[in-house]
Amino acid sequence: MIGVVMGSRSDWETMRHTSAMLDEFGLAHECRVVSAHRTPDMLVTYAKTAVSRGVRIVIAGAGGAAHLPGMIAALTPLPVIGVPIRSSAMHGIDALLSIVQMPAGVPVATVAIGEAGAKNAAVLAARIIGVGHEDVAQKVQSHMERMRTEVERTQL
Amino acid sequence: MIGVVMGSRSDWETMRHTSAMLDEFGLAHECRVVSAHRTPDMLVTYAKTAVSRGVRIVIAGAGGAAHLPGMIAALTPLPVIGVPIRSSAMHGIDALLSIVQMPAGVPVATVAIGEAGAKNAAVLAARIIGVGHEDVAQKVQSHMERMRTEVERTQL
Amino acid sequence: MIGVVMGSRSDWETMRHTSAMLDEFGLAHECRVVSAHRTPDMLVTYAKTAVSRGVRIVIAGAGGAAHLPGMIAALTPLPVIGVPIRSSAMHGIDALLSIVQMPAGVPVATVAIGEAGAKNAAVLAARIIGVGHEDVAQKVQSHMERMRTEVERTQL
Amino acid sequence: MIGVVMGSRSDWETMRHTSAMLDEFGLAHECRVVSAHRTPDMLVTYAKTAVSRGVRIVIAGAGGAAHLPGMIAALTPLPVIGVPIRSSAMHGIDALLSIVQMPAGVPVATVAIGEAGAKNAAVLAARIIGVGHEDVAQKVQSHMERMRTEVERTQL
Amino acid sequence: MIGVVMGSRSDWETMRHTSAMLDEFGLAHECRVVSAHRTPDMLVTYAKTAVSRGVRIVIAGAGGAAHLPGMIAALTPLPVIGVPIRSSAMHGIDALLSIVQMPAGVPVATVAIGEAGAKNAAVLAARIIGVGHEDVAQKVQSHMERMRTEVERTQL
Amino acid sequence: MIGVVMGSRSDWETMRHTSAMLDEFGLAHECRVVSAHRTPDMLVTYAKTAVSRGVRIVIAGAGGAAHLPGMIAALTPLPVIGVPIRSSAMHGIDALLSIVQMPAGVPVATVAIGEAGAKNAAVLAARIIGVGHEDVAQKVQSHMERMRTEVERTQL
Amino acid sequence: MIGVVMGSRSDWETMRHTSAMLDEFGLAHECRVVSAHRTPDMLVTYAKTAVSRGVRIVIAGAGGAAHLPGMIAALTPLPVIGVPIRSSAMHGIDALLSIVQMPAGVPVATVAIGEAGAKNAAVLAARIIGVGHEDVAQKVQSHMERMRTEVERTQL
Amino acid sequence: MIGVVMGSRSDWETMRHTSAMLDEFGLAHECRVVSAHRTPDMLVTYAKTAVSRGVRIVIAGAGGAAHLPGMIAALTPLPVIGVPIRSSAMHGIDALLSIVQMPAGVPVATVAIGEAGAKNAAVLAARIIGVGHEDVAQKVQSHMERMRTEVERTQL
Repeated sequence: MIGVVMGSRSDWETMRHTSAMLDEFGLAHECRVVSAHRTPDMLVTYAKTAVSRGVRIVIAGAGGAAHLPGMIAALTPLPVIGVPIRSSAMHGIDALLSIVQMPAGVPVATVAIGEAGAKNAAVLAARIIGVGHEDVAQKVQSHMERMRTEVERTQL
Repeated sequence: MIGVVMGSRSDWETMRHTSAMLDEFGLAHECRVVSAHRTPDMLVTYAKTAVSRGVRIVIAGAGGAAHLPGMIAALTPLPVIGVPIRSSAMHGIDALLSIVQMPAGVPVATVAIGEAGAKNAAVLAARIIGVGHEDVAQKVQSHMERMRTEVERTQL
Repeated sequence: MIGVVMGSRSDWETMRHTSAMLDEFGLAHECRVVSAHRTPDMLVTYAKTAVSRGVRIVIAGAGGAAHLPGMIAALTPLPVIGVPIRSSAMHGIDALLSIVQMPAGVPVATVAIGEAGAKNAAVLAARIIGVGHEDVAQKVQSHMERMRTEVERTQL
Repeated sequence: MIGVVMGSRSDWETMRHTSAMLDEFGLAHECRVVSAHRTPDMLVTYAKTAVSRGVRIVIAGAGGAAHLPGMIAALTPLPVIGVPIRSSAMHGIDALLSIVQMPAGVPVATVAIGEAGAKNAAVLAARIIGVGHEDVAQKVQSHMERMRTEVERTQL
Repeated sequence: MIGVVMGSRSDWETMRHTSAMLDEFGLAHECRVVSAHRTPDMLVTYAKTAVSRGVRIVIAGAGGAAHLPGMIAALTPLPVIGVPIRSSAMHGIDALLSIVQMPAGVPVATVAIGEAGAKNAAVLAARIIGVGHEDVAQKVQSHMERMRTEVERTQL
Repeated sequence: MIGVVMGSRSDWETMRHTSAMLDEFGLAHECRVVSAHRTPDMLVTYAKTAVSRGVRIVIAGAGGAAHLPGMIAALTPLPVIGVPIRSSAMHGIDALLSIVQMPAGVPVATVAIGEAGAKNAAVLAARIIGVGHEDVAQKVQSHMERMRTEVERTQL
Repeated sequence: MIGVVMGSRSDWETMRHTSAMLDEFGLAHECRVVSAHRTPDMLVTYAKTAVSRGVRIVIAGAGGAAHLPGMIAALTPLPVIGVPIRSSAMHGIDALLSIVQMPAGVPVATVAIGEAGAKNAAVLAARIIGVGHEDVAQKVQSHMERMRTEVERTQL
Repeated sequence: MIGVVMGSRSDWETMRHTSAMLDEFGLAHECRVVSAHRTPDMLVTYAKTAVSRGVRIVIAGAGGAAHLPGMIAALTPLPVIGVPIRSSAMHGIDALLSIVQMPAGVPVATVAIGEAGAKNAAVLAARIIGVGHEDVAQKVQSHMERMRTEVERTQL
């Protein structure tokens, strides 16, 4: 199972693209609001119990001083994918730097700001699952081919 | 007592200026390395026990994806002062944004990047203590006067 | 009493969130337009008489070349909280840097750009008051719990 | 096997930290210079044959207009980790944006700029392998514990 | 013939200005969607067959992690003009840096972000063709004179 | 007389270029350290008495949260020229924005960051004096000619 | 007379604020579109004949790669005030840097981005004229007082 | 012939790489210091006589408020290549934006900041000449092959 978390209810507008894309790949997942700053205990519990609850990858979206992905990465050995959410003041640059500039030892796999990143978090999760599951790797391959034919189909 | 924490041993090079300035104001403090990413449990414990251990203000220095000040602010009702540490790649801009752009509800009192900020964290702590302690407020006033006379003394 | 000042009448759109949040904490405050550039004498008078008028913390919001918080901090030993107001051209980055990058000796406790920062200035003030007043510290604690339950209540 | 590629011989100064960290996790890997711009055919061949050659994850480091990670991600369904190399002119910001801002459909798991990112690329690879291999997940866990004790051991 | 390519169908909104301006100069051209990330094989084929198909200059527009212009430049000895497309999150700064910061040996002639750049790509192509064709150089000269008289005609 | 002020003794390293260039134009001037933050009263006095003391233009250099030029401009009707001093953390960008982004009504004539700006502050002062004094305007003209011949003399 | 020039007809939307403010100060001026890039000869003529035509100060507004103010400053010994016009892609940062970062020897007195800067260019011109004309200096003083009373009048 | 110009004698440190690379391609060229700001008449003359003097392409390097490439492009119908020179304060970002953000109608073919860009300006010139001269196109092709073999030769 893939755990999809976000720092605020309003982030769902972006993160629902992650969920939809995971559905497209047929990957089971749960979606939760877990705020690093408003529910830090829930964050700790979520991260520490993730492995035992069967979570294999965590996708975390957050904006502004985006601490959620990095703190989860500090509390679980699972791969954590971070999605910088675009906020009004700084277009998501603050979130991007808060997520990607992790210190040596605790990585967050950071993707693009906003909707593109939200979708790509799901694709990246599929690629990661695909390392051990040929059927999922095949789905990634098929998705790449669909994108290719889509470009050809809508050619100018 | 004021709690001075930093994300890494190497941050001491900057944060020792906080300690020295707190000494100048005669303010008791402890200094600890508490890494949000490498010692998250210590972070939680430190923040949750701060009040009961007699800490009144926390000063937290961190660089890069600087989550330490914000996470402490999420875990204690004490005022938290954040010092962005200058790192090699981005001159501390990443740390500044990671610290200052906190969501509504959980503030971090952010000061300048680097050594100036480290010193100012101590001065800010003195000003905060001074709200309730006239003697400390007086020391802040004296420090302001010393700065003034220093400018006059070293006039061109 | 907490002094809330802002550089321009139009900043009220942002700073009214400070006032509302201070009300939520039951903290007495006054709101004033004090322009560093258009009413510098009023700025000096405001800052110099703040202590004697019973002000304990100053919250100053300003945009662009935001000199108000720093100049007040230079003229009073009280803790000064700076709120960078988002302006049209630079999204508040200019205000953020003008407020946070104070030289050693004269700190401004800087919070996030815009509305989130305006709210957090009030919360930070409550935390500072809470250092000496257990009842206010308790209100901060309750506010943190309300935020937590709000996340749980609006869970996906 | 993990494929470690970099855009230029001079990137080895950074990417050798990836190799050393992979060794620390006991993860087999190969290191190659593959330039997107000077050896584009080698890039295509490398990416297209990666799966059949037994590569499971690609780690790609590049600076400036860093196209290597994204182009490999476009040519293979494997997970690709991108390391922004710090160059003299822009401190790696150009590389960071060139790597992370991928369009929907083709993700690159981006890590921090420079040496910290190079190390974290290896740790992230270990976390990804760990999804399917309990022994590697255990090594990640042990590494996290070593970091924790290291902080405690070098406490101020 | 001039080859006009763009990374996505949606880039046509910008790149149609290139096509219209090329028409104004009477320069034959073809327009194609060629995605570096979704159709990498088409990219390679397009670039490698460009010379033999009679293409003399390639104009490539792309946004975000804009790899299209640079990869074409790596695969053909023709001059390549890159147009950074403005995307929602970063105003095209990411695209600008991804296009212009090419390593020594493989240049992309980069023009301004967005519509102005799209038009200028066509003018630059006309100037390049004009090096060997006096009639096109004359058209560039006439265009410069038309711009001049347009300023005079709409004088305040 | 031209008043040259700077926020800190260490700014002299930059501002001595202003003084030297004013000497080159034969323009009388005084140099003073006036810190907006450490000597705010001196700032107010300096600005308010400038006209009566015979100052005709104020040149103010400052770094970081550079409030000195703008505050002087708020306190005197004289033209104020601002020189952003390069500081270690942000290369003077913070100073540039703090100086140039003044609100409507109170301008600061901002010049380039660092030494070039320090020199240009003097040249700008000479141009301003030259509006009313033909001999100074002539000196500006001569200086422009010397620069021209210097380029010709050191031609490659 | 003050010469007000702008790089494009569309800049009038911003620069009309300069004209209106100059009217408020009773300062004679002319407004012209002079494009550095589309009418370079007009630029040269305008700048070279400015002194003989009675222009005493030039105010130049431009956006993007804003070369107009700097080129005029290179061609006349008059003081030149530069107004960075906000363009769609980069909020005027490109214009600000293109105008302010002049090399040693040829200053442009740069004001804020957009409308505030356009107004301030006029105020700065009034301050400059005021150096030699007491009546204009008096008008600047009165304007400062009007701003002050306006703040008081619209007090919260 | 290719005209290589630069805004200052000190830019030769960067632009000599252009000259050396043009030699490598056997392309005749002249090198001149032409300052937009210190020798504006020389700039006009240089640009206006370039065609008649047999110049086919102009390569212009400049730093800071880099007006040289754009002004030459405004004064000649030849293709103009701009090289942003890295200056101490802003790493060449100011030069990059001043060069690349040209308005519609007057393009500058911008290359990377600093030495890489200086080399690439020469390669781009060779590609442009190659459009009409098969032998030069062949040299570009050979250079691409040499880069490829160089990567292979220095493989890890």
